[in-house]
Amino acid sequence: MEQARIGVTGLAVMGRNLARNLARHGHPVAVHNRTSARTKALVEEFGDEGTFLPAETPEQFVASLERPRRLVVMVKAGAPTDAVIEEFAPLLEPGDMIVDGGNAHFADTRRREASLRERGVHFVGTGISGGEEGALNGPSIMPGGSPESYAALGPLLEDISAKVDGTPCCTHVGPDGAGHFVKMVHNGIEYSDMQLIAESYDLLRRAAGLAPAEIAEVFRTWNTGRLESYLIEITAEVLAHTDAATGGPFVDVVLDQAEQKGTGRWTVQTALDLGVPVGGIAEAVFARSVSGHADLREASRNLPGPARTGGGAGAGFADAVEKALYASKIVAYAQGFHEIQAGSAEYGWNIDPGAMATIWRDGCIIRARFLDRIRAAYEADPHTPTLLTDAHFAEAVGDAQDAWREVVVTATRLGIPAPGFATALAYYDSLRADRLPAALTQGQRDFFGAHTYRRVDRDGSFHTLWGGDRTEVGT
Amino acid sequence: MEQARIGVTGLAVMGRNLARNLARHGHPVAVHNRTSARTKALVEEFGDEGTFLPAETPEQFVASLERPRRLVVMVKAGAPTDAVIEEFAPLLEPGDMIVDGGNAHFADTRRREASLRERGVHFVGTGISGGEEGALNGPSIMPGGSPESYAALGPLLEDISAKVDGTPCCTHVGPDGAGHFVKMVHNGIEYSDMQLIAESYDLLRRAAGLAPAEIAEVFRTWNTGRLESYLIEITAEVLAHTDAATGGPFVDVVLDQAEQKGTGRWTVQTALDLGVPVGGIAEAVFARSVSGHADLREASRNLPGPARTGGGAGAGFADAVEKALYASKIVAYAQGFHEIQAGSAEYGWNIDPGAMATIWRDGCIIRARFLDRIRAAYEADPHTPTLLTDAHFAEAVGDAQDAWREVVVTATRLGIPAPGFATALAYYDSLRADRLPAALTQGQRDFFGAHTYRRVDRDGSFHTLWGGDRTEVGT
Repeated sequence: MEQARIGVTGLAVMGRNLARNLARHGHPVAVHNRTSARTKALVEEFGDEGTFLPAETPEQFVASLERPRRLVVMVKAGAPTDAVIEEFAPLLEPGDMIVDGGNAHFADTRRREASLRERGVHFVGTGISGGEEGALNGPSIMPGGSPESYAALGPLLEDISAKVDGTPCCTHVGPDGAGHFVKMVHNGIEYSDMQLIAESYDLLRRAAGLAPAEIAEVFRTWNTGRLESYLIEITAEVLAHTDAATGGPFVDVVLDQAEQKGTGRWTVQTALDLGVPVGGIAEAVFARSVSGHADLREASRNLPGPARTGGGAGAGFADAVEKALYASKIVAYAQGFHEIQAGSAEYGWNIDPGAMATIWRDGCIIRARFLDRIRAAYEADPHTPTLLTDAHFAEAVGDAQDAWREVVVTATRLGIPAPGFATALAYYDSLRADRLPAALTQGQRDFFGAHTYRRVDRDGSFHTLWGGDRTEVGT
Repeated sequence: MEQARIGVTGLAVMGRNLARNLARHGHPVAVHNRTSARTKALVEEFGDEGTFLPAETPEQFVASLERPRRLVVMVKAGAPTDAVIEEFAPLLEPGDMIVDGGNAHFADTRRREASLRERGVHFVGTGISGGEEGALNGPSIMPGGSPESYAALGPLLEDISAKVDGTPCCTHVGPDGAGHFVKMVHNGIEYSDMQLIAESYDLLRRAAGLAPAEIAEVFRTWNTGRLESYLIEITAEVLAHTDAATGGPFVDVVLDQAEQKGTGRWTVQTALDLGVPVGGIAEAVFARSVSGHADLREASRNLPGPARTGGGAGAGFADAVEKALYASKIVAYAQGFHEIQAGSAEYGWNIDPGAMATIWRDGCIIRARFLDRIRAAYEADPHTPTLLTDAHFAEAVGDAQDAWREVVVTATRLGIPAPGFATALAYYDSLRADRLPAALTQGQRDFFGAHTYRRVDRDGSFHTLWGGDRTEVGT
């Protein structure tokens, strides 16, 4: 009986495409789904793409895998993933591997990895980015788990991943939850990227008075320069698209309420636990949330705005927006990579941030020319505390900052919300500041809660007797 | 043997002061501490303030309480609270009450309440705000738990709470975790308030070139107007204070790294779970976090800023900052109350938001004249989706908005970070907007992930075949 090199259970679109990708690369794939109609449909429709070994039961599925078994689970995050693990784990033997390719929370992945490790089974939580199309033609893959599991699994995953000049967009991220953690931050950065693009569009439309088709052209031009990326490319496509029903711009018939799944929110919640400021990602998540609160928006529609609400953006405004976008994007990535480094330190993952930039260069939603710059920045200084101080990025931001400020000024005066640009600039100015008013905050905390403060001129913790004679005491 | 009406275990400063407050109001108080030295010290030092019944053991402590027993736990949140509950619960009888007056996470309070309810014991998680001084002289108290427990406990708590024109700053918030939830949001608002004050100070110092003592005078003047509040009052005190060691302004010798405990972070994390945008609170938490990252700040110190970094703020700038502060404060409270209403709906707490404003008018850190306006707003319309549309607040923000915009413009141009002002204004402009660029975001999501979109002109979910002939299909 022929054995499969790897198996995929859960044959919704992502699982199906991943199985096809493996088969197309010459790897015999066992395929299984809770309801076997999907398994049959896959084999009937795509059976000529490679070797598929359909299984009707978990037992058949497991029996068809060569050892050590590589079992990829592509089901919904949360309880369904736990249910599938519980179903398959008893059928496995020490050394076998369960790979979770869904968008699990890294804390769940850590829990599952620890639990399966006790049973001798490797659990590999892996991020897979690129959507349906990426899963089929080459995604960016971010596997966590043990080095042993990567030795057995990595070559296969690298084989089906996207490539940049022959370098696979797949590498071993680190132990246990590291892969899902990095995928989470990838998605958080994606939120930020999309919000900055949305603000750029809104400003070009309302401040510069350009039509969607004209703005599509602006994005096309940007896509030939340093902003070149998948998201800029598809922005042009979406903005250029005409709605067949109305004959007007597609973007104008779409309800302006952006939805979200969990990963953007998790990125911010995790950053808060780690003490990492990620204002750019948070404002992106909140902007989607605001957009969806139809009741608040309806109630607020008549609140007063500025006298002048559009126009007044002169020649060169699109160039200024390009600079604001590039500078804000640098901040978003600096914040995201800060979170990766903080998570790596917290959980002892030893993640190589430059390697993450390397595997994001293609296959994933945030793929961009820009990521090669980040790779280079970490190559130049693997221990840099922030990407902002890399020579290239510092120069780019320095060159952009006057325009960046004027774009925020224009948005502010015209009443066009630009929370992403504004928070990125405030973050930049906060890091640059010689002194922050946090000293006042700390003084207030000492006043009302005796939380103490440190001094600039000597070590130790101090408290002022605010309710008494206001002398200072060491603590 | 004399019985105590209520008992306090955990006699660090908050517990000690709460016990003294109870005793001073004529309620015999049993007092207990893990190490009995603190119990003895309390009775020796403050025994003449009322009736204290010291207990050396948990059994003595419980035996000294009249029934149903009211047992207040004032220990650290987390594991210490669980340990104390486990120690005392077996000694209690059905109908007895355990009151947790620490800063517990409301999810822990829900868990503890459910667990003790099974044993017939009421668990009351209560927020207590006002710091040491409030605990002694009249805090704002936010008790959750069952109505039965409030019937037995409420009169005592109302008795020792702060009062405004005879109205106690204490009311039954709602079942199980409602009290700790509201206290958490109170603290989140406090973070936002403090950040906005910090930005106001920084702008007056750097843009208007005022000295700390002069800024103290500005805050003193503000404290006679609509901004009148405890935090504005103590800001003036902190800024006016001279450091004895250097003879210079106190605020200049304090290390500019603000610390935080957990509640601000929790407020944002919970808001993310509830889908409530709280940019004002998030930026306040992040600002403290940025200030503490000494390594990033040190590395970034030479990043380029604008050519002009100070001055240029003309006459009337302080008035403009006052308007920006008031308007941003309205946004912060609108966001916080939105979170309270969302939490109340999610957990079925039926919280009266106007009652929360009422009990925050005195005793707590955010006490302010302003809260009477919020109380009035909910009295006028208990179902308002946002405080921003209340007649008073809408007028105030409308009147403030030109100045608000110019303050953000000044900060942006001079390179003075004002993330709190900026996010508040962006939130305001987002809610006002006829159309948001979220439509583009949703179009992108449909492009790369087939996430579908809704249309403005008819019901249903739609998907465009982006990879095909770009026709639209219903889903």
